[in-house]
Amino acid sequence: MNSQYQRNAGFILWFTGMSGAGKSTLSQAVYDRLREGLGEQFIATGRIELLDGDEVRTHLSKGLSFSKADRDTNIRRIGFVSRLLARNGVIVITAAISPYREIRAEVRRLAAAEKIPFVEVYVEAELEVLIDRDTKGLYKKAIAGEIKDFTGISAPYEAPENPEIHIRSDRQEISESVDAILSQLIERELIERKP
Amino acid sequence: MNSQYQRNAGFILWFTGMSGAGKSTLSQAVYDRLREGLGEQFIATGRIELLDGDEVRTHLSKGLSFSKADRDTNIRRIGFVSRLLARNGVIVITAAISPYREIRAEVRRLAAAEKIPFVEVYVEAELEVLIDRDTKGLYKKAIAGEIKDFTGISAPYEAPENPEIHIRSDRQEISESVDAILSQLIERELIERKP
Repeated sequence: MNSQYQRNAGFILWFTGMSGAGKSTLSQAVYDRLREGLGEQFIATGRIELLDGDEVRTHLSKGLSFSKADRDTNIRRIGFVSRLLARNGVIVITAAISPYREIRAEVRRLAAAEKIPFVEVYVEAELEVLIDRDTKGLYKKAIAGEIKDFTGISAPYEAPENPEIHIRSDRQEISESVDAILSQLIERELIERKP
Repeated sequence: MNSQYQRNAGFILWFTGMSGAGKSTLSQAVYDRLREGLGEQFIATGRIELLDGDEVRTHLSKGLSFSKADRDTNIRRIGFVSRLLARNGVIVITAAISPYREIRAEVRRLAAAEKIPFVEVYVEAELEVLIDRDTKGLYKKAIAGEIKDFTGISAPYEAPENPEIHIRSDRQEISESVDAILSQLIERELIERKP
């Protein structure tokens, strides 16, 4: 990190991945562990907010479509709000598909410009597994052409090339993934384990 | 306030008033005084963010018009972001026209539901004075019919009935107004003057 960066202040934990890959579940689990852990297991000055993609669409981006331009706008807004929070010492966890590499890079760059640590978590599962799970029935509809611009089917997902954390949700348990993420946060000195 | 409210935590200082009434100037002055004063003259645990109407339109509401529906959406977004910040201990100062009473009341209600103090500052000046000042040349255009839905000319401004603070920018100096606002914040125990 940057030498001016104050240890244990706010940071952004940015989940990216296709629909159904497990971003919401995993981000919620990390949020819960950190929330209950901050007083007990972990030390961090930051408070925590979870900005879930669906919630953000309701409050910040109602009316936006899933075209590339509108998705970019949505991600920029999440980035803007995340920076506002993180620069005030809040640990911000975001969980939006954020399929375009360029916009994720932009969000990262703008965070860096404010000395806000940005940790990208790529949540991956084989497309076959996602289609097979299809918890919300969206893949079926997308394949049938009933949903336009569906990431992974009729719209691209550009996988991160160098994410700080890479989770294979089709090969590991949620608890394993959560542990892996928390370990990375400790390693990066964004949180500390209590002695 | 509420007994559960923790003294000197985050709160929302919400400026409302017509274009040119002095919201931006005044909110910036309060922001500056608080920012420099928090370490010296005042005590507050909160950090500070200023959400100016124009900046917010760029980052959160690009594409929205000035119709009632779009203005309401814009104000709801500012309210959402303000609550996110304030509930994490940030002092949030907003400066948007926010002409509709009902939406301001909604933002206030949602803040109260999270025990976030909401302080409304009504910045008023006679319409004649605003038209006379017309620093941005907008009133002239609005009167000529070149700008649609312009607050005070071709769209309503619903003045607050019971604002916590009422500033007459056409009758008092900026420094007087800033002092009046800071005094109110002290009186409400949202900030403290250092002994």
